[in-house]
Amino acid sequence: MEPATLEHLATLRAKSGSDVDKEIYAFKDKGGRDVGLRFDLTVGMARYVCSRRDLRPPIKLASVAGAWRYDEPQHARYRWFRQWDLEIFGPVSVGADAEVIETTYRLYQKLGVKFSVQVGDRGAVQKFVNDGLGITDQEKAVDLMRALDKAKKKTLGELKREYGTKGYKEKAIESLFEFGRISGSQDHVLDALSERGLESPALVELRDELRGRGLTDVKYNMGVVRGIDYYTGIVFEVMDSEHPDLGSLAGGGRYDLLPRTFGRPDLSATGAAGGIERTAMAISGKANPQPLLVYVAAAGPSSLQAARRTLTDLRESGISAETSLQEKPLSKQLEDASRMGATWAVIVGEKEAKEKAVTLREMSTRVERSLPLSLAIDSILAGSQVGRR
Amino acid sequence: MEPATLEHLATLRAKSGSDVDKEIYAFKDKGGRDVGLRFDLTVGMARYVCSRRDLRPPIKLASVAGAWRYDEPQHARYRWFRQWDLEIFGPVSVGADAEVIETTYRLYQKLGVKFSVQVGDRGAVQKFVNDGLGITDQEKAVDLMRALDKAKKKTLGELKREYGTKGYKEKAIESLFEFGRISGSQDHVLDALSERGLESPALVELRDELRGRGLTDVKYNMGVVRGIDYYTGIVFEVMDSEHPDLGSLAGGGRYDLLPRTFGRPDLSATGAAGGIERTAMAISGKANPQPLLVYVAAAGPSSLQAARRTLTDLRESGISAETSLQEKPLSKQLEDASRMGATWAVIVGEKEAKEKAVTLREMSTRVERSLPLSLAIDSILAGSQVGRR
Repeated sequence: MEPATLEHLATLRAKSGSDVDKEIYAFKDKGGRDVGLRFDLTVGMARYVCSRRDLRPPIKLASVAGAWRYDEPQHARYRWFRQWDLEIFGPVSVGADAEVIETTYRLYQKLGVKFSVQVGDRGAVQKFVNDGLGITDQEKAVDLMRALDKAKKKTLGELKREYGTKGYKEKAIESLFEFGRISGSQDHVLDALSERGLESPALVELRDELRGRGLTDVKYNMGVVRGIDYYTGIVFEVMDSEHPDLGSLAGGGRYDLLPRTFGRPDLSATGAAGGIERTAMAISGKANPQPLLVYVAAAGPSSLQAARRTLTDLRESGISAETSLQEKPLSKQLEDASRMGATWAVIVGEKEAKEKAVTLREMSTRVERSLPLSLAIDSILAGSQVGRR
Repeated sequence: MEPATLEHLATLRAKSGSDVDKEIYAFKDKGGRDVGLRFDLTVGMARYVCSRRDLRPPIKLASVAGAWRYDEPQHARYRWFRQWDLEIFGPVSVGADAEVIETTYRLYQKLGVKFSVQVGDRGAVQKFVNDGLGITDQEKAVDLMRALDKAKKKTLGELKREYGTKGYKEKAIESLFEFGRISGSQDHVLDALSERGLESPALVELRDELRGRGLTDVKYNMGVVRGIDYYTGIVFEVMDSEHPDLGSLAGGGRYDLLPRTFGRPDLSATGAAGGIERTAMAISGKANPQPLLVYVAAAGPSSLQAARRTLTDLRESGISAETSLQEKPLSKQLEDASRMGATWAVIVGEKEAKEKAVTLREMSTRVERSLPLSLAIDSILAGSQVGRR
């Protein structure tokens, strides 16, 4: 599905958290309503699913569509960008989190990207903030979660100054910073959490789920909390190992409170989304075979109609074919064929047209053969398989 | 490609004509600029191509994306809708018009829709208005072209009243109405135009082009002018023969002035666009085989991990597979499989897991077989080909 482009501004604002709020393209529609362009796909999909009480959980949905954020454009970040997105709504289940993480993992595996999946747990962070730092005020806890997210881009000094002015103790920010650096193999992180009395049952169950699915190299990382406030449990990010400058290629996690604010406390939710543009950058330069193109040339004005018919026949056989849309000398047509990168030219002359034959010219070698069109099509298709192997 | 979502309002306004103008979602962005959501894909694609002086004509582009119009929502017309779109920019060439019309024709042919393609020529209409009606003022000529477009939905009486108040003579509106009813086979329409001294060289050349491409049942219809003002020459519409209430499924034509207003008098343009939602309605109810779904069930809690691994193996073989994301009794899992419409259930038990075997259950017959997973996958794939034939 594709979620609605425009949402009531209140719907977008309630869910985004303060950082994204500033970036919403907001305006009044012609009916005087305050609306905004969607800043992600999750909010619209969640609102839709929550309104469909006839659907039986678990409900799985996927989307590929654009979103808008009024941010400073920078490398791999645009004001308008596209995402792939998948969501599972149903009872709370680590199996659903594993399903989302595995699908994301297999996607990037198939794309041939070198990547790592880093999983965190906002539940464990919350416990650390509550019990470890002794901060029980929920607003402050969310504030510190944001600090942890920022810790990836800022130094400890910067963070202490920023949060010092907000009234947080230096010691607390230091502990938080150190906590966020717990990362590595699943067993290592689970042990480190146990040592601090911060067991995460969700991360233990997730480890077993992922092992069952044959994924053994997913990392745990307590510094992964995701920027947007609606996440509540397991969260994760996909990092490009070859292009760390791209930021995360994809990410997601559990957001059980969002269905509740849409009037569905019976549903929990988990999902993932990835940036299409960033993913395209990550795979650019990887294997991308030259597509097959055939150019149809008319030997003279009298064979123009026969050439058009040949063009249609080639296309009906599933072959990408181009021709000149205007009358041109044959030599000019062959120049065009070469410039467009055609592998073959099919030349249609008056004599050939009468005999239902064509001249097949291999562009790279200039070797020509006269043969029936059906055999020419067979040759082209056979050649394309070799070329694409 | 996908053209920009937001354009400067002035760009959209200059091109749309008065009817669409009222329907643009317009607002100020956070930089105080007047912008609007695109109302079609053509304007944005044309602006983009005209800015790319490095591209060598003919330039062919295609897009599938959404557009917005603040219109009254009604049957098969939404405020947000999606279109497919293709455009050719280059020298003026009826061959390009034929290429666009053929591609559109083949698309609907492949979709299995019963349709007719109706082609008009705004050049011939212009000539009729200038010479036949003696109206040479260009603004009035465009106004009458709009009247012709409205004639499909209004009676002659309504039209005479509406245009009478604008100062047009009854006689002129009557002649125009009658002119718009010239339609039928290509030869019939070309003859009718000749009789009136309104030869259309473009329509003659197009007939030959379409014949060359093997399209013999395209109709000519002088009442087809398209609503949007940017069209200048050959225009066409695809009508669903079974659902005339859907309006036109697709349409397009030549719009040579638009590149000129974007600073490229060297380029002419022709293209087509179709409504995805209307096309979906047109083909709904047509052959749509039930997709294959396999449900993976765990015989008990101890075989959960093996079931997860089996799920992944099936998916890696290209088979759509689902499983319960929570622990459930086997009977409940098989109920779920049935409810989801699974063709097969693959049941993984502790004993089978050890022997790398599964139980394959055909859901409709409840027949079960125990066999290695690889053979179960072969059976499923073989069955799916039979089922899909």
